[in-house]
Amino acid sequence: MPTITSKDWTLAKRPVGEPQADDFGMVSNDAPEPGAGQIQVRNSWMSVDPYMRGRMYDRESYVPPFQIGEVLQGGAVGRVVASNHPDYAEGDLVQSMAGWREAWTAAPEAVMAQKLPGDTGLPDSAFLGIVGMPGLTAYAGILRVAELKEGDVVFVSGAAGAVGSAVVQIAKIKGCTVIGSAGGTEKCDLVRSLGADECIDYRAAGDYAGLLAALQAAAPKGIDVYFDNVGGDHFQAAIECARPFARMAICGMISQYNDTEPRPGPNNVIQIVGKQLQIRGFIVSTHADMLPDFQRDMVTWITGGQMKFEETVMEGVENAPNAFMGLFSGKNTGKMLVKLS
Amino acid sequence: MPTITSKDWTLAKRPVGEPQADDFGMVSNDAPEPGAGQIQVRNSWMSVDPYMRGRMYDRESYVPPFQIGEVLQGGAVGRVVASNHPDYAEGDLVQSMAGWREAWTAAPEAVMAQKLPGDTGLPDSAFLGIVGMPGLTAYAGILRVAELKEGDVVFVSGAAGAVGSAVVQIAKIKGCTVIGSAGGTEKCDLVRSLGADECIDYRAAGDYAGLLAALQAAAPKGIDVYFDNVGGDHFQAAIECARPFARMAICGMISQYNDTEPRPGPNNVIQIVGKQLQIRGFIVSTHADMLPDFQRDMVTWITGGQMKFEETVMEGVENAPNAFMGLFSGKNTGKMLVKLS
Repeated sequence: MPTITSKDWTLAKRPVGEPQADDFGMVSNDAPEPGAGQIQVRNSWMSVDPYMRGRMYDRESYVPPFQIGEVLQGGAVGRVVASNHPDYAEGDLVQSMAGWREAWTAAPEAVMAQKLPGDTGLPDSAFLGIVGMPGLTAYAGILRVAELKEGDVVFVSGAAGAVGSAVVQIAKIKGCTVIGSAGGTEKCDLVRSLGADECIDYRAAGDYAGLLAALQAAAPKGIDVYFDNVGGDHFQAAIECARPFARMAICGMISQYNDTEPRPGPNNVIQIVGKQLQIRGFIVSTHADMLPDFQRDMVTWITGGQMKFEETVMEGVENAPNAFMGLFSGKNTGKMLVKLS
Repeated sequence: MPTITSKDWTLAKRPVGEPQADDFGMVSNDAPEPGAGQIQVRNSWMSVDPYMRGRMYDRESYVPPFQIGEVLQGGAVGRVVASNHPDYAEGDLVQSMAGWREAWTAAPEAVMAQKLPGDTGLPDSAFLGIVGMPGLTAYAGILRVAELKEGDVVFVSGAAGAVGSAVVQIAKIKGCTVIGSAGGTEKCDLVRSLGADECIDYRAAGDYAGLLAALQAAAPKGIDVYFDNVGGDHFQAAIECARPFARMAICGMISQYNDTEPRPGPNNVIQIVGKQLQIRGFIVSTHADMLPDFQRDMVTWITGGQMKFEETVMEGVENAPNAFMGLFSGKNTGKMLVKLS
């Protein structure tokens, strides 16, 4: 059980606007042999997710901010190299929040680690995506928060992303008409291949007027549900096209995460009254009680061929900041991941 | 049963921005003796309400727009002068949507008329306010739409108005901390006299920063519920001060009804996600099923001295446009009414 030397990423300074390479710093840390109740794990995959941008601000939020000079955190899966814990054995597959590093030694509960089943037939990386946090986000958001009903006309922004692509497919499984939005022809082709009835290329649409016209053309009778990953113009267009009693699940607003100044909100919030809209923000952890249903349904759908998932993979821990920064320019299709070993 | 000559108000032209006197036109119409199934009614009170501004735009909405040259509609109560309908007798108290006029002859169902109980001990005008549409709006909005719970910190804008003043009192009856907002010292005194723990004079606060500071001072731990009658800066301040899982019932946005250009929305909608806010617009007619509970509770509260109501009365049908226009400059405390006979 030798000590492993791990390359870890710290937050060197707080990004202002779009994150830059020098906002991150690499350090070497030891992952020593495990003490009592500890395990030593070599990460095989780490996740980068848009919500991490929020943790880089120094402000009160639903998760505490990252501290400057400290190692970043995030989802990771890996294999136990050595265990001094009765529930873990060498070779076990483990999920944790000890990402942004190659290896670690800790008590499982200190890094929110849990053992994963080894017999699902799914690739290990799937636990960071379709059967992990982004998958549950899609599942809870569209089914519970947006109260999806058969026959709904559903609009999904960020439809080629990890969460959005799952939302598209869940809504199709539930018998809805689905309109996605994504940036570029390739992504839109993917979204349609997942079953979406339409996909709007918001880059080709150009501006708000173009986006609105495209949505009105795709949903001439309006939309019943909006699943927001993007914010900004997409949110405003969704309000504009909402039918009476439309429900909106606000999952994220990636277009605004790097704003350095407050940005004016949708100019049509007055429609919330007359259309009796319901707009709900949510955080996946609030819906952890849905995990058993989610895992059962998702495995059924994947093995039944109803649920596909895409990954965009960057290789090596050195690329972690690039993978993260790529989220904000849409470099990923499906889940953005970093392969570590 | 002679014909009554009634002075009626028509929409002369669609207001642009703030409504003006020459947007309205007066005509004389006959209210003849009733034909089969009809009643002849002399209105004693008519209501002016902020929602009527929306019906003056030529656009699709939850109620059809007023047509130019046609007599306006709105809540009214009056007494049956003559009846050719088996369910109505001379002297019966009747509520209808045949406001903006002194008298009318019609089948009850053509003007959404219904007979009111004559034995409540309440003044007739109360059926246009505290036990009428504005009262039900307050009741349904705070109890169902905002899902009020005992102990909530509740923020109510337009707290001296017909709806807001009822919301303040219902929330106090339900064991909440209540912060109102109203324009001017007198109105704030009234709101406090209704039981509000605090009332912010938004005129004295001056601008958004002042309003926000006042709300933060009044609710140092944040708010759980926001009842919006006003929109604009109030809505933004409420989002800013919202606690996690706060619920917002969006009843109206009177500060924006006369806008001639789209107005930027709240610049902090991104907080909807992290705070997991629930924002719901509503229209009172959707909650008509609550009418029996509402009437029972409201009469109990009024007779028990727990529910007070204010009225601002203008005399004579000639003053109806002045009463309506006064809503937008805050000329009313409590329900704005026009006394007709």
